[in-house]
Amino acid sequence: MQPIYLDNSSTTKPCTSSISAIEDALVNNWGNPSSLHNLGLQAEHIINNTRSSISDILNCREDEIYFTGSGTEANNLAIIGAAESLKRRGNKIITTSVEHPSVLNTCEYLSQNGFEITYIKPHKDGSIHASDILNAVDSKTVLITMMLVNNETGSIFPVAEVGEALKEMKSKALLHTDCVQAFGKMNIDVDELGVDLLSASGHKIHGPKGIGFLYKRKSVNLKPIIHGGNQEKGLRSGTESVPLIAGLNGAVSELKINSNLPEIKKLHAYALEKLSQNDGIVINSPTVKNLPYILNISVLGYRSETLLHFLEAKNIYISSGSACAKGKGSHVLTEMGFSLDRTDSALRISFSRYNSLEDIDALYNALCEAQKSLRRK
Amino acid sequence: MQPIYLDNSSTTKPCTSSISAIEDALVNNWGNPSSLHNLGLQAEHIINNTRSSISDILNCREDEIYFTGSGTEANNLAIIGAAESLKRRGNKIITTSVEHPSVLNTCEYLSQNGFEITYIKPHKDGSIHASDILNAVDSKTVLITMMLVNNETGSIFPVAEVGEALKEMKSKALLHTDCVQAFGKMNIDVDELGVDLLSASGHKIHGPKGIGFLYKRKSVNLKPIIHGGNQEKGLRSGTESVPLIAGLNGAVSELKINSNLPEIKKLHAYALEKLSQNDGIVINSPTVKNLPYILNISVLGYRSETLLHFLEAKNIYISSGSACAKGKGSHVLTEMGFSLDRTDSALRISFSRYNSLEDIDALYNALCEAQKSLRRK
Repeated sequence: MQPIYLDNSSTTKPCTSSISAIEDALVNNWGNPSSLHNLGLQAEHIINNTRSSISDILNCREDEIYFTGSGTEANNLAIIGAAESLKRRGNKIITTSVEHPSVLNTCEYLSQNGFEITYIKPHKDGSIHASDILNAVDSKTVLITMMLVNNETGSIFPVAEVGEALKEMKSKALLHTDCVQAFGKMNIDVDELGVDLLSASGHKIHGPKGIGFLYKRKSVNLKPIIHGGNQEKGLRSGTESVPLIAGLNGAVSELKINSNLPEIKKLHAYALEKLSQNDGIVINSPTVKNLPYILNISVLGYRSETLLHFLEAKNIYISSGSACAKGKGSHVLTEMGFSLDRTDSALRISFSRYNSLEDIDALYNALCEAQKSLRRK
Repeated sequence: MQPIYLDNSSTTKPCTSSISAIEDALVNNWGNPSSLHNLGLQAEHIINNTRSSISDILNCREDEIYFTGSGTEANNLAIIGAAESLKRRGNKIITTSVEHPSVLNTCEYLSQNGFEITYIKPHKDGSIHASDILNAVDSKTVLITMMLVNNETGSIFPVAEVGEALKEMKSKALLHTDCVQAFGKMNIDVDELGVDLLSASGHKIHGPKGIGFLYKRKSVNLKPIIHGGNQEKGLRSGTESVPLIAGLNGAVSELKINSNLPEIKKLHAYALEKLSQNDGIVINSPTVKNLPYILNISVLGYRSETLLHFLEAKNIYISSGSACAKGKGSHVLTEMGFSLDRTDSALRISFSRYNSLEDIDALYNALCEAQKSLRRK
């Protein structure tokens, strides 16, 4: 029996094009891209092809894309790299309190090293208001880092509005956006967003784990966080993972953002309709300005982890609100002001192009069964 | 025509076991190791299997192995991680002047951040004397980082001797060794070496590019250089590259260190014998205390790059002394005291278990032909 996989914001099943591109690189194109001979040039060609595919999607230059070992590393490079590069100009960084740990913990690291971090809280509906961010900007601000899509709720943050206002204010602060959950799922144009830095990951779009990338506007200077042979124009040393970069290109080649999004909207609407028939289930995701790939709910009275394992026994896979420590609610839902009772019973359903309406039926039926057969906490 | 690949210290052809392990992970085991459900547990199982295989080889505990995105990242994590962790105790680091750029440039970064770096030079024969290192150790010394095998000459450095002496001296300095060129090619026992930290890479042992690991003795504390979801016990955040970790295990499973080494010794001896018949060729690698996987020579009067391209046209692949900038000789050979004439004409021949005596014949004949047909510089 094929698993019903509704945990696509955690990771995705690699697609055929991605797998075959990886295999081809391993078997036929295993040269070191730094080698001066043609085995090296062939490997470099693979890397440049992927750079080109990504730049087409983001509407940027090929030489503005830098490969890293993960989305997390791309976030670290953007944030630490910008902070270290600009520390003589100022020491203030603005972010939101509901970012991914790869942003929050990197900011926390910088706060121990002379930087002052301002955390903007979300409103009750999970939204971040551009004005809250902009009001915090001052002459010492060197970086604003905010995600485009929240990984737990699907809430879309007003990055473009912040980008435009920063330009109007003639602020010198850089704007970084973590697009790990957004890339490949909605149209992204770096100029429309007005961002200087943008991070994404391969394994959230049916590519392999172990590859991420950073878009860096050509005029921006960053300090590297990994030092060595000066690969990636000195910004990320270490022999490039040619097979995974090839696999990322394979995944990108299968993206059909504009035709997939309406399909995912249907799944999302159908799930909302189904789940609202059940009085014991509440919706935590925002209903406007949200990416329909993610739907966060709470099944009141039942702990997330208990439900997760109940579903798992039926071959249905979702995740709890976050990969948080036992008994500790999701920081995102907590920041939104939800009670412990609600954060404790949160479930994140996340879709991919491989899901069907039947998957949602199966999930809904299993949740109803859980409510009947499991003891309330 | 199959290429004659004698550039195995740059990178290696992935072996069958490695490729099939990667494919299997991509197709059948693509869960996120951080997921609480069984797709996550299965992925975690793959990671732990690889940890176990590596710990068997190094004679360490499984939980002392941490995966990174490259050997370079492992070197950065060891050096920056130790320096940041110990900076209250002292600010001195000792290394050699002939380390890989991932060590030298990381030390250079630390030197700009309050650390004092002592660079020990090699002797004329390429050797590093343990006494030169030990004489530099003082009460402020927090770290000694030295490679086990030099990547350009194959010279084996006296890591075990330094390790033993540090213990006798009751020094609190940590000992790190870059084993990117040594791992899988000679027997390595972390206790016999007396090291606290050891780095290696997958793609030098017929595994994939994009995976490295760090051995960290359990009692040692490091600061992470990448922050986020606290994977790898907080030392290296970012979703683990399960397919590449599986591929590393595949490569490790094919290692036959004790039976391969005598075969490589034969290749090395045969190459030495052949090349010494040619008056225009000199040997740069040491003749004692060297790993026979690497043989560095100079074809006097001919520039490395010219020779490299001449050989490439005959489908023979080697590298110049290093991936150095045009016209600038190898830093390793320069530090050994060789003249520009010799460093400028250096070639690195590096073997693998897939090479044969016929490969050496082909290389030798091609070099003789080059001497006849190319114009001397």
